[in-house]
Amino acid sequence: MPVNYSTPSPDQLLPVAGIRLGVTCAGIRKANRRDLTLIELAPGSRVAGVFTQNNFCAAPVTLCREHLASGPIRALVINTGIANAGTGEPGLAAAHASCAAVAALLGISENQVLPFSTGVIMEPLPVERLVAGLPACREALTVDGWFAAAHAIMTTDTVAKVASRSTRVAAKTVSVTGISKGAGMIKPNMATMLGFVATDAAISQPLLQRLVREVADESFNCLTVDGDTSTNDSFVLIASGAAGNPEISDPASADYAALSLAVAAVARELAQAIVRDGEGATKFIEIAVGGGASREEAKAVGYSIAQSPLVKTAFFASDPNLGRILVAIGNAGIAGLDVTRVKLWLGDILVAENGGSAPAYREEDASRVMAASEIAVRVDLGRGAAEAKVWTCDLSYDYVKINADYRS
Amino acid sequence: MPVNYSTPSPDQLLPVAGIRLGVTCAGIRKANRRDLTLIELAPGSRVAGVFTQNNFCAAPVTLCREHLASGPIRALVINTGIANAGTGEPGLAAAHASCAAVAALLGISENQVLPFSTGVIMEPLPVERLVAGLPACREALTVDGWFAAAHAIMTTDTVAKVASRSTRVAAKTVSVTGISKGAGMIKPNMATMLGFVATDAAISQPLLQRLVREVADESFNCLTVDGDTSTNDSFVLIASGAAGNPEISDPASADYAALSLAVAAVARELAQAIVRDGEGATKFIEIAVGGGASREEAKAVGYSIAQSPLVKTAFFASDPNLGRILVAIGNAGIAGLDVTRVKLWLGDILVAENGGSAPAYREEDASRVMAASEIAVRVDLGRGAAEAKVWTCDLSYDYVKINADYRS
Repeated sequence: MPVNYSTPSPDQLLPVAGIRLGVTCAGIRKANRRDLTLIELAPGSRVAGVFTQNNFCAAPVTLCREHLASGPIRALVINTGIANAGTGEPGLAAAHASCAAVAALLGISENQVLPFSTGVIMEPLPVERLVAGLPACREALTVDGWFAAAHAIMTTDTVAKVASRSTRVAAKTVSVTGISKGAGMIKPNMATMLGFVATDAAISQPLLQRLVREVADESFNCLTVDGDTSTNDSFVLIASGAAGNPEISDPASADYAALSLAVAAVARELAQAIVRDGEGATKFIEIAVGGGASREEAKAVGYSIAQSPLVKTAFFASDPNLGRILVAIGNAGIAGLDVTRVKLWLGDILVAENGGSAPAYREEDASRVMAASEIAVRVDLGRGAAEAKVWTCDLSYDYVKINADYRS
Repeated sequence: MPVNYSTPSPDQLLPVAGIRLGVTCAGIRKANRRDLTLIELAPGSRVAGVFTQNNFCAAPVTLCREHLASGPIRALVINTGIANAGTGEPGLAAAHASCAAVAALLGISENQVLPFSTGVIMEPLPVERLVAGLPACREALTVDGWFAAAHAIMTTDTVAKVASRSTRVAAKTVSVTGISKGAGMIKPNMATMLGFVATDAAISQPLLQRLVREVADESFNCLTVDGDTSTNDSFVLIASGAAGNPEISDPASADYAALSLAVAAVARELAQAIVRDGEGATKFIEIAVGGGASREEAKAVGYSIAQSPLVKTAFFASDPNLGRILVAIGNAGIAGLDVTRVKLWLGDILVAENGGSAPAYREEDASRVMAASEIAVRVDLGRGAAEAKVWTCDLSYDYVKINADYRS
């Protein structure tokens, strides 16, 4: 059960003009399961993406990078079940074959297709089943396909993750709609497991590229479930231009600001949904770190807290064993951190200052905060003005259970 | 239940001439539990130590560093129950008071005492109970006190950890005996939670200092249970000189080599015992990484594997979902790692090469290795000749249970 998240109903999802989606059950790893998604982009669409920093990046990630650099993208193909990662040369050949099959079906060229895979690592992708499923995907293509696609990209997710916003750009109403998947192996580094967000706004390629990075940094790059950066992390932003607004090309314009806000809201909702659906999660925790000398160190402290198994089990137990948070702050590798200047709050309760417990701190107050399903942790490092947020969940028996059982 | 470890019997522990230990139940946090240890060192003893790199180091660690820099050390005082970490100025005052009380009791000065604490963080040390327990500790002082002391320093440990060796130095038989504690919040960075090793060999202060670092680097600094570096990590090496050998002062001498081997063997046994007794551990895993461009990067890869919750839960499940190990290798942050040159073995089975599965790899072979309680993982990075080992355990339901319940 996700923490305070349920999938919005299909009628809350705005179609994005110029973008059609279709899914099918291709039997990639299991039968009778929607596991293949085709996304078709209208001519003139622009695409930008950010991808995993894992050295063992998956074959489709390698191809995505190549294809984004060459041609205008016209289609995305996404399979679950097999990650096509740790598969060497045969894996790359399988990814190529997937793109070639989509290209043949849609009458475009192979480098206009972006492939994505998610699932088990180091097992071969049954590319013939993927190819055999593509005609059914094309038959199913519809602008109302977001809801089905959100389901078809799930692996250990317990709920589909979708979000939608509209905003005004140059007197036109534009839509922003996205889907994401992920529940474990989640510490995105440039992007999450898989996230796809599209808008019908027209925006220049350089600005779209900038937007995808800015948004990733404030959404998918702020979360961790278990600290494991996947081989397949990809976050892709698509702009079809079908809304008919004059192309946004000035980063200082009100239009860019409006679109940026809407895209960021969708991405943040999708990113937080991943944490809320984190494997075994019973609590959603936001860690806000301020007073940093740099954003990097603020984020490092946030992640050190968010990734500590001891902090995460204490949250699971609703036990205000908050010294564990101080330990995690001390382990973030911040050179010259003066611990007497560090302050720690749980909710609005000042827990620690001057290197120890705050005089007014009472454990029963902290217990009350810990008992909730949404918990805010705030840290002031007392070194500067930089800040960062990290979202995470607790570590429960079920995390172990899910990951000890995943393949069976 | 520790993995393939049980405490050696008391008669296997060699006394170390010049070192006496005494313990008592001081009621620091719980009644009727041995929780206070006094170690008295004969005049002329030398002491060297390495300590946690956590910014929030405990008050006793701060004092240890100061006292080691000033006077010859004549006593160690160790309490469990309360870590005296995250306790600010009052914590420092409590640590001073502990040292002062030991000094008064033994007729030495305060800066000749090293204090150690382990237990709950951010709660005040009841120093009056500690002081009240000291006379009983002094009464109990004996050269045969190692076994009792190993029990008195335990917290969530399920077994006491002791090790002993003897060796020949300049025609004299010298003893090396040590104790350690630790089961969770274990990723030592310079030393483990608590480790004390003593020898009666005579060795110069600079060489003792060198030895403690060398040994820590090959023992306590090679392990992780949960990746959390404690605020109280301390590893102390004592040389009483009572064996009567000519003082060892040449690092190239056979005497230094002999002593170093014995000390390293004791430290390694104590360090591995901590992993074997790791919270919830059901398996002991040695990760040997070779072919590194530097020892640092080999160790980083070892730790990245050892700390991945997904790898650890796969070991718990005996599930050869070995792609997770590739993911962890890829996440170690090694710039320019060529994944096609990486090789991965489980036991003696070649699992992966050329960026994917090895052609001869069969999952049933890996399953057989995974089912054992001792598992060897070997990685060749294909970049150079540097190597490193890391020891860890699996991540089980019981880790979560222990850490969700620890204070209750």
